[in-house]
Amino acid sequence: MTKSELLPGERLDDLQNGFEIIQDPHKFCFGADAVLLSWFTRAQPHERVLDMGCGTGIIPILLKARKKGRHIVGLEIQPDCAQMARRSVIHNHLEKEITIVTGDIREASSIFGGASFDVVTCNPPYMIHNHGLQNARREIAVARHEILCSLQDIISQAASVLKPRGRFYMIHRPFRLGEILSQMVCYGLEPKRMRLVHPYVDKEPNMVLLEGILKGRSRMTVEKPFILYKEPGVYTQEALEVYYGKTGE
Amino acid sequence: MTKSELLPGERLDDLQNGFEIIQDPHKFCFGADAVLLSWFTRAQPHERVLDMGCGTGIIPILLKARKKGRHIVGLEIQPDCAQMARRSVIHNHLEKEITIVTGDIREASSIFGGASFDVVTCNPPYMIHNHGLQNARREIAVARHEILCSLQDIISQAASVLKPRGRFYMIHRPFRLGEILSQMVCYGLEPKRMRLVHPYVDKEPNMVLLEGILKGRSRMTVEKPFILYKEPGVYTQEALEVYYGKTGE
Repeated sequence: MTKSELLPGERLDDLQNGFEIIQDPHKFCFGADAVLLSWFTRAQPHERVLDMGCGTGIIPILLKARKKGRHIVGLEIQPDCAQMARRSVIHNHLEKEITIVTGDIREASSIFGGASFDVVTCNPPYMIHNHGLQNARREIAVARHEILCSLQDIISQAASVLKPRGRFYMIHRPFRLGEILSQMVCYGLEPKRMRLVHPYVDKEPNMVLLEGILKGRSRMTVEKPFILYKEPGVYTQEALEVYYGKTGE
Repeated sequence: MTKSELLPGERLDDLQNGFEIIQDPHKFCFGADAVLLSWFTRAQPHERVLDMGCGTGIIPILLKARKKGRHIVGLEIQPDCAQMARRSVIHNHLEKEITIVTGDIREASSIFGGASFDVVTCNPPYMIHNHGLQNARREIAVARHEILCSLQDIISQAASVLKPRGRFYMIHRPFRLGEILSQMVCYGLEPKRMRLVHPYVDKEPNMVLLEGILKGRSRMTVEKPFILYKEPGVYTQEALEVYYGKTGE
């Protein structure tokens, strides 16, 4: 891809794993949450994966970089964003492995049919409609706030499109954990694994990684804390492995 | 109290906080969970507290040692155990501040009436009926396994006996967190504060402390990890404060 193939405002970022991604810094750029979610997700080489609300396509590309999943579908409601994701897929020669579909998470089960995926991933908007200031740029507001879909939409649709014993992976904010776990239980996505991400060992977690299994039995593992920094600017060994390791697990 | 006042098999243990407790080492003796729960619980000097399933009366006595709550009621279904708790209350001259009631948690709201407590505490049996081996001694089996009441009984009854905005405190095992949080949400005991207790910083948590507020709004704080040991046999500073500090908070 040459610079002239990018649209105005876009840039091409090196993911340091053999792939690149098109992003527009004035819209939405991926963060640590996408990296953590792709690392936490378990997907076998034969499994079919759906990434709900894929944005720029970062999760499907990071999963492929980690050799997770066979075919990955990214579902994105914003046409410009879906188109940007498609261009990143083509740029990385991943057209056979990643398909970007323009559509609404709330219609996932009618778009794809029930019980059609082994794994669903989601890095959803964290803020409920009235939490925090909404960003004036629509792309950023949609990524951060539950404007176009709610937590319940995501969890109920994930449960619908997953095969029995299919797995759901999500990263979210700990302040919503009560809602998250109760919605997951409510829709039969039994919480099985949880990892809290703390900036420092003596700080509250600011992210939570979750695995649910459709119709799993009720017993979960809360894993050891994931600590990002040893001291300001110095990653822990584990964070270094997540960011720069090949598989990270 | 002289040794001759203890029943066969009983002993008097010094709680290192000005109080003592009668325990029978062949039945059930309190552990770190009771100490942690009494430390985590917030109860103002004017508040009325119910400890559900008080056993030997350890939680009411530890709360009083921490100057938490005005009047504390301990509800215990096993008559021998309730009687032992009463003798500990008398031994510590706490008769005006702690009342032990013999009765069933499942009937708490009919025993005490609805909306009658500011705070409810509970250190429940952790194992569901078929989890793990049941201890042949009934007192120990009842304390460890959900034989006489379920998690749902505890949460639903706590919600019934609490006043609006009343607070519920429980210590439990992390493997049941999905069930716990979803039941709390279901009965309107909104999870507001959670602290995971890890034996070491790089190990999975083995206990979880929870605070719920009746009809609270849906937003919770997951606190920094509570770490018990720096190295084998060496408590962290925080654990030392919980065990030996005056208020611990």
